[in-house]
Parts: sequence; structure tokens; C-alpha cells
Amino acid sequence: MTKKLYAEFFGTFWLVFGGCGSAVLAAGVPDVGIGWLGVSLAFGLTVMTMAYAVGGISGGHFNPAVTLGLTLAGKAERGDLFPYWGAQVAGGLVAGLILWIIANGQAEFSSVGNFAQNGYGSASPAGYGFFAGFLTEVVLTAMFLMIILGATSKNAPAGFAPIAIGLGLTLIHLISIPVTNTSVNPARSTGVAFFAGGKAILQLWMFWVAPLLGGALGAILWKMVEPDDAT
Amino acid sequence: MTKKLYAEFFGTFWLVFGGCGSAVLAAGVPDVGIGWLGVSLAFGLTVMTMAYAVGGISGGHFNPAVTLGLTLAGKAERGDLFPYWGAQVAGGLVAGLILWIIANGQAEFSSVGNFAQNGYGSASPAGYGFFAGFLTEVVLTAMFLMIILGATSKNAPAGFAPIAIGLGLTLIHLISIPVTNTSVNPARSTGVAFFAGGKAILQLWMFWVAPLLGGALGAILWKMVEPDDAT
Amino acid sequence: MTKKLYAEFFGTFWLVFGGCGSAVLAAGVPDVGIGWLGVSLAFGLTVMTMAYAVGGISGGHFNPAVTLGLTLAGKAERGDLFPYWGAQVAGGLVAGLILWIIANGQAEFSSVGNFAQNGYGSASPAGYGFFAGFLTEVVLTAMFLMIILGATSKNAPAGFAPIAIGLGLTLIHLISIPVTNTSVNPARSTGVAFFAGGKAILQLWMFWVAPLLGGALGAILWKMVEPDDAT
Amino acid sequence: MTKKLYAEFFGTFWLVFGGCGSAVLAAGVPDVGIGWLGVSLAFGLTVMTMAYAVGGISGGHFNPAVTLGLTLAGKAERGDLFPYWGAQVAGGLVAGLILWIIANGQAEFSSVGNFAQNGYGSASPAGYGFFAGFLTEVVLTAMFLMIILGATSKNAPAGFAPIAIGLGLTLIHLISIPVTNTSVNPARSTGVAFFAGGKAILQLWMFWVAPLLGGALGAILWKMVEPDDAT
Repeated sequence: MTKKLYAEFFGTFWLVFGGCGSAVLAAGVPDVGIGWLGVSLAFGLTVMTMAYAVGGISGGHFNPAVTLGLTLAGKAERGDLFPYWGAQVAGGLVAGLILWIIANGQAEFSSVGNFAQNGYGSASPAGYGFFAGFLTEVVLTAMFLMIILGATSKNAPAGFAPIAIGLGLTLIHLISIPVTNTSVNPARSTGVAFFAGGKAILQLWMFWVAPLLGGALGAILWKMVEPDDAT
Repeated sequence: MTKKLYAEFFGTFWLVFGGCGSAVLAAGVPDVGIGWLGVSLAFGLTVMTMAYAVGGISGGHFNPAVTLGLTLAGKAERGDLFPYWGAQVAGGLVAGLILWIIANGQAEFSSVGNFAQNGYGSASPAGYGFFAGFLTEVVLTAMFLMIILGATSKNAPAGFAPIAIGLGLTLIHLISIPVTNTSVNPARSTGVAFFAGGKAILQLWMFWVAPLLGGALGAILWKMVEPDDAT
Repeated sequence: MTKKLYAEFFGTFWLVFGGCGSAVLAAGVPDVGIGWLGVSLAFGLTVMTMAYAVGGISGGHFNPAVTLGLTLAGKAERGDLFPYWGAQVAGGLVAGLILWIIANGQAEFSSVGNFAQNGYGSASPAGYGFFAGFLTEVVLTAMFLMIILGATSKNAPAGFAPIAIGLGLTLIHLISIPVTNTSVNPARSTGVAFFAGGKAILQLWMFWVAPLLGGALGAILWKMVEPDDAT
Repeated sequence: MTKKLYAEFFGTFWLVFGGCGSAVLAAGVPDVGIGWLGVSLAFGLTVMTMAYAVGGISGGHFNPAVTLGLTLAGKAERGDLFPYWGAQVAGGLVAGLILWIIANGQAEFSSVGNFAQNGYGSASPAGYGFFAGFLTEVVLTAMFLMIILGATSKNAPAGFAPIAIGLGLTLIHLISIPVTNTSVNPARSTGVAFFAGGKAILQLWMFWVAPLLGGALGAILWKMVEPDDAT
């Protein structure tokens, strides 16, 4: 049990440190900055790399909404749900802390409202309202779970799931960074919210509710297409 | 049968929602926007991810021109052609609708002539005429079919087809977004045309005729190279 | 024999049409253009996609320097060398022609000195001289052959060679587009030279000599590392 | 033994020539330059391509910190440590030399303080201080080793390790180019330091100490998650 939780801890640490780190440190630098395309790639590669590294140990969820969806679909053990959530949130928070220390190594840096936090309304990167943000998070998390459940089913070729899932997260960011800064992962939102403060904390509830709802919905949608022999 | 159609529905939904969504929401944002490179990647990743997720269920076409080409090449069942087309168009239209709702969550948004629609002449992103657009769509759809037929033949290594096919679609977009905004897929064109209105509707016929012609041509070209034992 | 030559024809067609096409049509569009990063990705994906599609038929060279290197290393049949070169150059020229037709679908287009041609000195994209260009082409083609010979040897995992080789070509472009606009492939240089005219024709000899020299050098370097049991 | 060292020599040559070459030659060109996103991709692809090409010969380290971490984790032979370090540094220096010759093919080029060197404080690309740089290099090298050890363990699917490791290096660059210009590899830092001169030489010690410390830390962290049967 302990090794599985360490794996989830390090995997979620990497997701938040790498994904949010690329956004905070490298996205907006003039001329040579990596932009949202680079940030999208970074988030996806955190999951791809750690899914290959420790996926065989913990399943490689790194995301409370994924653990919920897999549990509802009968692909993860019920008793692991809350321990996994704990390890994931802890990994995210440690990542936020180390990233905050590094970012402050640049003299002019301030993390307030500027720490890759998720948000809607005036806190949305491009000014999308609450309903658009909520709908986006639910739809994208649901489709993320379909990709995960499908790519790890026995009908899919073995070994490729981390590519499909990691680059699926890249795709999700390519679509939705302007809307909510893309969560689909409550641990990622939580890991940076406290360093950003203000609306990031006030709106954090939505980035638990919408992804968890989406994760559950994805498990249901998958059952619509799952072959009878795909267990 | 039903599960195959659901798979095509969700796959084409994802192609239009993800590909066109990245274009509508994220491509043109100043400084950090993902540009046509990001949109090209997004379209390819929609196909790669859902081909890994549900390719084992429906074959993972998500495109009426692909279904036509595979049917002509003898790699898909004739009786599936029209049911697949129906599921694909339905998935594209639902994607267009949900994307339209989300995009309108930004107060200043207007979808008229601004919804990732395909076009030629004055409706081409960089002003390419009808003949250039038609030729581009035919050639690229034909080569797309060659990639699909080759990468799924028994001479190709197993399991890699979704990578070749998905990134093949990325490549097709890298070439041709300036010309027609890249269709090669009538369901993708149809899914957004009605929300864009005007020329997107008037020119929609071309984005059925040229891709279908290209899909048929690709099936013929493949027969020129197909080994005798590649069934 | 014929099917192998058709495969080389279509593969080289795709390399020139896709790689040079992305450069001519999409690279320099303001704000949303794909830039040299997009062009680098496009060149690599042409090879990756067609290597998965027809690599099992012809070996998937699509490049006279690759055919030479593989022949010298004993991995391709001597008798295929000139027929392959012929098919590759023919494919490149047809690609250049179709691309020229499409590009002229934009009213203001002129291909003179503006058709993704390779060059050095004043014809180098960033003004690199002859010696820098020659050295770059030799070194990069040699390393390209090492990647190809290594990734297709029996010590490498099966099925992944098109990824290594295709993305290796992407990498080569990321390094050297500023220097020579990146050839490492005489068929690619020839396919567009006549449409660009002027220095592209006068300097074309160098983009045969340097890549072929590099291809031969790569075969020699590979022998330095090749395990005794890697045939 | 000799073939393994040649493999490490060529692999590290490629890492420095390709990664630093893309940075020096192509990153900062106006409008179409590849930016830090392109440089990040280039570094990762050097490792991915040569890991597929010669990974089966030498293990494909190309990095003294990786060799140290793998040795401490019991996955590489102790007697190889210093020979590998020698081959890696030699490969990096030859790459620096050839890159310097090519870069000087552009008349206005000067390598002083402009040769993809690593640095902190006033030598950091975006002005990050010593502690931030040191912490970044330690954390990222440690996570790099976790990815390497995990993706090559018997719990991970066979054949995919070069993808996970190569794109893991891409991810590391997406995060940290602004901080230290990203080393995580003493041979890479050494290969270009002497051509850049000044602070690149004065600060070089840090880009040996921090990555080696990180490599050792990564070996320890891996032991926290390694399954009992993963040898």
C-alpha cells in the first residue's frame, strides 16, 4: 500500500511542478517563451513520463477525478479512493511549495493571482463565465476518463496507454486554457491555489465539483461503448 | 452495432470539439495563443486518443471520407457505411453545439464567420481560390487514406496505427490550414458550418465532394503499393 | 520491384509535398503561422507516417542519401540503388509541381526564390556561408544514418523505428533550417529547386554531394558502434 | 567495452550538438524562430533518437548524472562510471567545437556569453538567483532519474523507455530554461562552457554538483517506490 501512495504522491508532484511550473516560469517570457502550447505539452508529458515510470505500481492516476472515475467503472479498488486522494493532494501541495520557492528566486516575482491558478469569470484567463467554465471542466474530464478507460482496456494495444492519456491531457489544455486555465484535476487546482490566494481560493470548490462530476460521467459514457469482453 | 455507432459518435464529437475548440478558443489569443501549430496538434491528438480508446470497437474512423475509403478498399463492411456517416455527423453537430455554448461564455464572442469553418476564395484563411482548395482537399484526403490503409495493414507493426494516423492528421493541418482551414472530413465541416453561417453553408458541398473523392482515390492508390499478402 | 518503387515514389512525394508545403503555405503567416518549429514537425511526420504505411514494402527510405548509406552498410540491395533514386526524384518533382499549382491559388504568390529551396551564402535563410552549410549537411546526414541504422537493428525494440527516424528528421530541421533550410535529402532539394529557380538551381549540386557524403559517413560511423550480433 | 564508449560518445555528441545547436542557431530568429519550445523538443529528441539507435549497446545514458544515478541504484556497472564520464565529456566537447565552427559561418556571430551556456544570477536567462537554480537542477535531475529507472524497470512496458526519457528531458526544459538554461547534465554544460567563456566557466562547478546530487537523490527516491520484484 505504501509504495502505491508514494507513486501517486510523486506522480502528482510532477504533474503540478512540471505543468504549473512551465506556466509560471516559462510561458510568458517575451519572444522565446513557450506559450500555452508549451504549457499544454508540459502537462501532458508529466503524466506520460510518470505513467511509464510508476504506472505499473499505482495505476498512475495522479488526479482525484481519475481515481473516482476508475473506481466507479470498477477498475480501481474502492478502499484506495481516499488514500489516493490524500497522496495526490499532498503531492500537489509540495509541488506548489517548491515551485513557489523557485519562482521567488526571480527578484520581481509575485505569486498573488499569478501562480497558474484555475478560475472563472474575471479569474478566467480570457474572461469566460462560470457556466462556460463549469461545462468545459465537466465535458473535458468526462472525455479524459473515456480515453483512460478505453486505452487501458484489453481491446487497446498494450503499452500505449501513457501516450494516449498523456497527450490526451495535452489536448485538453490546448482547448481550455483560455476558459479556466484547465483543471480537470482537483489536486492540481489545490496545489497552487493557496500560493495564488484571493479568487483562486474562493473558486477552488468548483474545481473539485466539476472534475469529479466529469469523472463520474466519463465512467457512465464508457459503459455505453465498452465491449462485453473488455474487462 | 449500437456500440460501434456510439464509438463513432463520441470519436467524431471529440474530433470536432477538440480540434475546432482549440481553434475557436485558443488559437488567436495574443502572445500566448497556440496558433495553427497548436490547432494542428489538437486535431491529430483527438484522433490518436480516441483511436486508442475506441478503435478496437468501431475501427476508429470518425470521418465519412475514411469510412468510404476503407469500404472501397474492402477493409470495412458495406452495410456500415451510412450508419457510420449518420453517427459521425451527429457527433460533429453535438460538438458544434456544445462548443458554441462555451464560446458564448465570453461576452464579446460572435460565431458568425468565426467558428473554425472551412472555406475557399474569400472564405479561405489566406485567400486561396476554389481550385487550389479542391485540389488540396483531394490530395490530402487521398494521402490520409494511404496512411490509414498502410498503418493498419498486416505489414505494419501492430499498435502504432493511432500514432501514425493521428499525427498524419496533424501534418495535414500543418500544410493546409491557410488554404481551406483543412477539412479532409465532411463531418468536421458540417459540425461547425451552421454556427458560422453564410459562406460556410454555401460552400459546405465542396467539403463533402472533395474529401469523399480523395478518400476513394486513396483506396485506389493503396492498391498500387499493397503487397499481395497484406490483407 | 514495381510496388517498392511506387512506395518510394509516394513516400518521397509526401515528404516534399508535406514538408515543403508546410513551409511555403503556412510558416510565415503573421500571428498564427507555424514557423520553423511547425515546418520541422511537418518534415518529420511525413517520414513517420509513410514509414508506418509503406516501410514494410520498400524499407521507407524516401531519400537518396539514405538509400546510399543503407546500401553501403549492407542493409539494402545494391541493385535497388538507382531505381530507388529515380523513384525518389520523380516523387519529389511531382510534389513540387502540385505544390506549385496550389501555391499559385493565392493571387499574390510568386515561387521565385520563395519555394522552400535549400541554399548557402546569400541563399541561406540566416546568411550562413558555404563551408558552414556543407559541414552542417554532412554531419546531420551522417547522424541521420546512425539513427536509421541503429533504430532498425535487431538490438532496438521492434516497431519504434519510424518514430525515432521521423522525429530524428524533425530534430535535424530544428537545428539547421537557418543554415541551409535543411536538405539532408537530394530528392527534397531537387523537387523544389526548379520552381524556385536562380540560386536554388546553381547550388543544387551541393545538396547532392554533401548529403551523399554524409550518408556514406554515417554508414562508417555505425560500424564503429554496431554490435557483432546486430545484423 | 570500446563500442559502449563510442555509443556514449556519439550519443552525448548528438545531445549537445542538437540541443545546444537548435538554441544557438534557431531559437531567437525573429518571427519564425523555434523559441524555447523548439529547443526543449530538440533536447528531448536527441536523447530519444540515440536511445533507440544505441541504447541497446551502452544503455544510452549520455549524461554523467544519469550514469551516477543508475550506478547507485545498481542498474549500471561500477567499473563503467569513469569511462562513461570520459566518453560523455569528450562527446560534448567535440559537439561544442563543431557547433562553434558552424555558428561562425554567420558573419556577425559571437559565441561570447551566447553559446547556450548554463548559468545563475546575472547569467540566468531570466535572472534567477543561485539558490533557485541549484534547487531546480537538483529536483529536475532527481525526477529525471525516477523516470529513467521506472521506465526501464520490468514493470514498465518494453520498448517505450526512450519515448518517456526523451520527452521527459523535453519537459524538464519546458520548465527550467528560464532559470538556468537547463543543464541536468554536466557533459552538456561542459561541452559549451569554454566557447561561451566568462561566467559559463566560473559557474560550471555548480552544473556538476547539482545534477550529480540530483542523480543520487533520484536513485534514493526510486527505492521508495520500487516494487520488490522490479529488478
